[in-house]
Amino acid sequence: MANPQNQSLKTKQRSSRRFSSLLPATHWLRSYPKDYLVGDVLAGFIVAVMLVPQGMAYALLAGLPPEVGLYASIFPLIIYGLLGSSRALAVGPVAIMSLLVGTGIAPLAEVGSAAYLELAIVLALLVGVIQLVMGLVRLGFLVNFLSHPVLAGFTSAAALVIALSQLKYLLGISMPRLEFFELLRYTAAHLTETNLVTLAIGGTGILILLYFKKGLGKQLKRWQVPAGWVLPLTKSAPLVIVVLGTALVWGFDLNQQAGVAIVGEVPVGLPPITLPTVDLALWQKLLPTALVISFVGYMESIAVAKSLASKRRQKVNANQELLALGAANFGAMLTGGYPVAGGFGRSSVNFDAGANSGLASIITAVLIALTVIFLTPVFYFLPQAILAAIVIVAVAGLVDVKTFRHVWRYNKADAASFVVTFFAVLTVGVENGILFGAGAAMLLFIWRSSHPHVAVVGRLDNSEIYRNVLRHKVQCWPNVVAVRIDESLYFANCKFLEDTVLGLVADQPEVDHFVLIGTAVNFIDASALETLESLERQLKDAGVQLHLAAIKGPVMDRLRDIGFVDHLGKQFFHLTTHDAMKAIGVVK
Amino acid sequence: MANPQNQSLKTKQRSSRRFSSLLPATHWLRSYPKDYLVGDVLAGFIVAVMLVPQGMAYALLAGLPPEVGLYASIFPLIIYGLLGSSRALAVGPVAIMSLLVGTGIAPLAEVGSAAYLELAIVLALLVGVIQLVMGLVRLGFLVNFLSHPVLAGFTSAAALVIALSQLKYLLGISMPRLEFFELLRYTAAHLTETNLVTLAIGGTGILILLYFKKGLGKQLKRWQVPAGWVLPLTKSAPLVIVVLGTALVWGFDLNQQAGVAIVGEVPVGLPPITLPTVDLALWQKLLPTALVISFVGYMESIAVAKSLASKRRQKVNANQELLALGAANFGAMLTGGYPVAGGFGRSSVNFDAGANSGLASIITAVLIALTVIFLTPVFYFLPQAILAAIVIVAVAGLVDVKTFRHVWRYNKADAASFVVTFFAVLTVGVENGILFGAGAAMLLFIWRSSHPHVAVVGRLDNSEIYRNVLRHKVQCWPNVVAVRIDESLYFANCKFLEDTVLGLVADQPEVDHFVLIGTAVNFIDASALETLESLERQLKDAGVQLHLAAIKGPVMDRLRDIGFVDHLGKQFFHLTTHDAMKAIGVVK
Repeated sequence: MANPQNQSLKTKQRSSRRFSSLLPATHWLRSYPKDYLVGDVLAGFIVAVMLVPQGMAYALLAGLPPEVGLYASIFPLIIYGLLGSSRALAVGPVAIMSLLVGTGIAPLAEVGSAAYLELAIVLALLVGVIQLVMGLVRLGFLVNFLSHPVLAGFTSAAALVIALSQLKYLLGISMPRLEFFELLRYTAAHLTETNLVTLAIGGTGILILLYFKKGLGKQLKRWQVPAGWVLPLTKSAPLVIVVLGTALVWGFDLNQQAGVAIVGEVPVGLPPITLPTVDLALWQKLLPTALVISFVGYMESIAVAKSLASKRRQKVNANQELLALGAANFGAMLTGGYPVAGGFGRSSVNFDAGANSGLASIITAVLIALTVIFLTPVFYFLPQAILAAIVIVAVAGLVDVKTFRHVWRYNKADAASFVVTFFAVLTVGVENGILFGAGAAMLLFIWRSSHPHVAVVGRLDNSEIYRNVLRHKVQCWPNVVAVRIDESLYFANCKFLEDTVLGLVADQPEVDHFVLIGTAVNFIDASALETLESLERQLKDAGVQLHLAAIKGPVMDRLRDIGFVDHLGKQFFHLTTHDAMKAIGVVK
Repeated sequence: MANPQNQSLKTKQRSSRRFSSLLPATHWLRSYPKDYLVGDVLAGFIVAVMLVPQGMAYALLAGLPPEVGLYASIFPLIIYGLLGSSRALAVGPVAIMSLLVGTGIAPLAEVGSAAYLELAIVLALLVGVIQLVMGLVRLGFLVNFLSHPVLAGFTSAAALVIALSQLKYLLGISMPRLEFFELLRYTAAHLTETNLVTLAIGGTGILILLYFKKGLGKQLKRWQVPAGWVLPLTKSAPLVIVVLGTALVWGFDLNQQAGVAIVGEVPVGLPPITLPTVDLALWQKLLPTALVISFVGYMESIAVAKSLASKRRQKVNANQELLALGAANFGAMLTGGYPVAGGFGRSSVNFDAGANSGLASIITAVLIALTVIFLTPVFYFLPQAILAAIVIVAVAGLVDVKTFRHVWRYNKADAASFVVTFFAVLTVGVENGILFGAGAAMLLFIWRSSHPHVAVVGRLDNSEIYRNVLRHKVQCWPNVVAVRIDESLYFANCKFLEDTVLGLVADQPEVDHFVLIGTAVNFIDASALETLESLERQLKDAGVQLHLAAIKGPVMDRLRDIGFVDHLGKQFFHLTTHDAMKAIGVVK
């Protein structure tokens, strides 16, 4: 019956669970299949072409010198290539993490100072340690406490914050560090100071990027360019605008003549070996930021890795990913970098270009290393507006209107957590925003379970099935009320339970028997147990016998242990609703 | 079938729901039954005897002058007597609220200053407004977010904090305001400074209080004292030690000769009319404290009122109680008082002494008013150690070891929230402690539902009932896995769901059909819907068909609206597990 595919998935799962190695690279290093090579080399190359300008741009977004973004794109990538369980994840500087790094350390040191740089390195250490520990003690599941709508709301708002933060480079206006809405006002008030040459360069950059993204593919097809060339060409847009922008500024001396802000000197040579400042008080201050970055970085990485892996029926090991990311961040700490993660954009390109193993990552790293050794002087005249254009286009796709529409249609509580997180990020900042959103999602969940769905049930067509009287044509009896409460009974819905039961009894004066059906009751906590005891007393006083039907095994065990079964009387516990009705005598 | 009692409860409930009047006193004022009078007068008198020393003691605990405690025992009681729906609740200063008032305003003004007093009055205003608003918009249910174990843990720890705070009066040592553990250390280090005369007075006070509480009742019975006298006599202990202590200090000039701290001058006359400082920034600062006090005060009051009412088959209206308490606090604000609530100890005495209506409260208030008009000079020589003894004995009963033992036996998660709240109160303070505890209880709830109970089920004896294979002898089929997940599916257990389903399929290679049983699934949020969609894909890839059985009406509606029913295929949704098995073809 089971088809071979079926079998293979199952065997793979089992063996991967049993022999999950700490060094997945041993697999492909030992016997590297020759046909992997083309894909790995091509993917490694295209990702490197994207990563050079992105790395510098994201470093600037974090308030760091551009070379830090390049440094973070060398050793962390080699380490991830050896340790990662995903074959396509492209690790390195990522927009949202850069934003978090910037907002996290800006209050503690001046942008551009040596202290600022040191804080970034300490953050890389902390993130590395947190992710390693989470991987070792298998805490990866913790990310599940962030729901999809919360994450989508967070990402959407963070993208807006990032885009706004780049306006200063695009317009050539100097701006202070402000909250989102204040920055919006400030920008509007200072629009007249725009450097038009800078804006022209950046604006053209954005247009070119968008054309490469949306239009070029079709155009190339029309020109009958070989399919293998389409991806490398469309993804070379950042490189193209970097070259054009740099040439323009250099050729027309625009930095001197028109005041176009340029990247300036970028050090030549491989990254320095760096060690973090050992200062426990400082580490403690950075810990909340580091926790948020660790979580967000891991979530983004695992989401991308999983979705890419599932396209090729491969598996990603969540704990192995934590270890690999942690080690990569550790590598960033040692080599003058800052926290890294697997980015969505580059990983997709890596995948599409045919990355088959960690070798792709390592090739990218080697190319970036060659860049820092030989090419950094070229970036002297690179306009900052070009880097801003790259960031803006990259994050524009993160504003997730589609998810919002979907959850709005499906479930207003989910939509509410999206909206709350979105506005929290814009008003109280990215870091507090995501915590606020996560808290709101949990409160909404508790709120929802505090007034659960209740169904008065009756018997369906002389069967043993009992269903909601409002949805089905069922048989009822005047002296019996049978109610299914669709929720575990616990502190938040105790009062609801009491009000519901007493209300139903009050509405049906002939009642002698009240049957509480436990099919949906997954546990009963101490507060609810107290409520049940008090309900039993109150019902007895009113001449009504309480019955419990279809209580689940684990719940029943607890009730028996604490003595409630004996207290109520064993004869009032029934295996099913039908058994309860038989015991009461209304059915045979 | 229904007995008369039954009928009467039901009618009462319905009519009270319909005609819930805003002024319950109209009932007993219009036609006051003569036989209520003896009980009301006796109860009012006994409570006043307890309240005079307690009011002064609790005011000192809050860092306020003793007369404030008396002022808070006049108008608030009259207002509650007219508005309250409980016939036995004795409102006034309460130990835990006094502690909260003290810890809330001590950081903002110096103890003993006029500003401190003003802050207490602002707090009474805020608490009054919050409770009134909660009553008007029917938010009383909010207190359910504090579980019983959290509340018990909070009360127990607060009692310890209060008792420790009183040691300085009992030992005659001056102590700074410190956190619990620091204060403990400080006290231990300064024990040698104890004023032995003070300790002797306070210690004797405690012994007398304990004897009156535990031994005197039996003794009076042995002496064949008429039953009606037992309660007034046993409850007069505070009055007895106040008289004895005052006489001792006055007679032997102990305040001068032995340095025994005394209450000193207490102003003569009715409370002044006071209005709160209007300072929005200040109000905002006090808001968190006011919220905690409002909640805690309401919870304590409603819990006492309910438990006393149920003993006499009376009803308490939760929203009416909020209105009455809010108005009482408003009264405290206008007459130089501080936040009040219904206390456990005095309410029980009020009930036992036979309070039949709000008149008892009003009589208490009149007696306290007479006290402040005529008797305050008498308190000049009252030793503070006597008041401390009264507080310590009152709060000793609040350390709730019984509840802890009970929840420990029943449910470790509940026990954990007790313990967490208990230690949080001792380490991060009473106010943060209860918030921390409430947060921990919610997280524990989410934690619990993030790895729910899962039952693989089989068919019971050729019936239509499907039960856990581990608990029942049931029939299973090699090509079918039927699983009941005992929890709503939502963001926190998405990964658990995925791992569980894929794990079960991996463990049973012959599987062609996977039946997910929804009897315990009360909702499916957007994150879980995404997981179901991805699971369906993965199972299909592995050659396994996903079936959903016994999905509840409201859940089904959502799945249909969003298109998941059509996506999976209507034929794979089944009304019951048995229907699913019939459709698969393993049963007929």
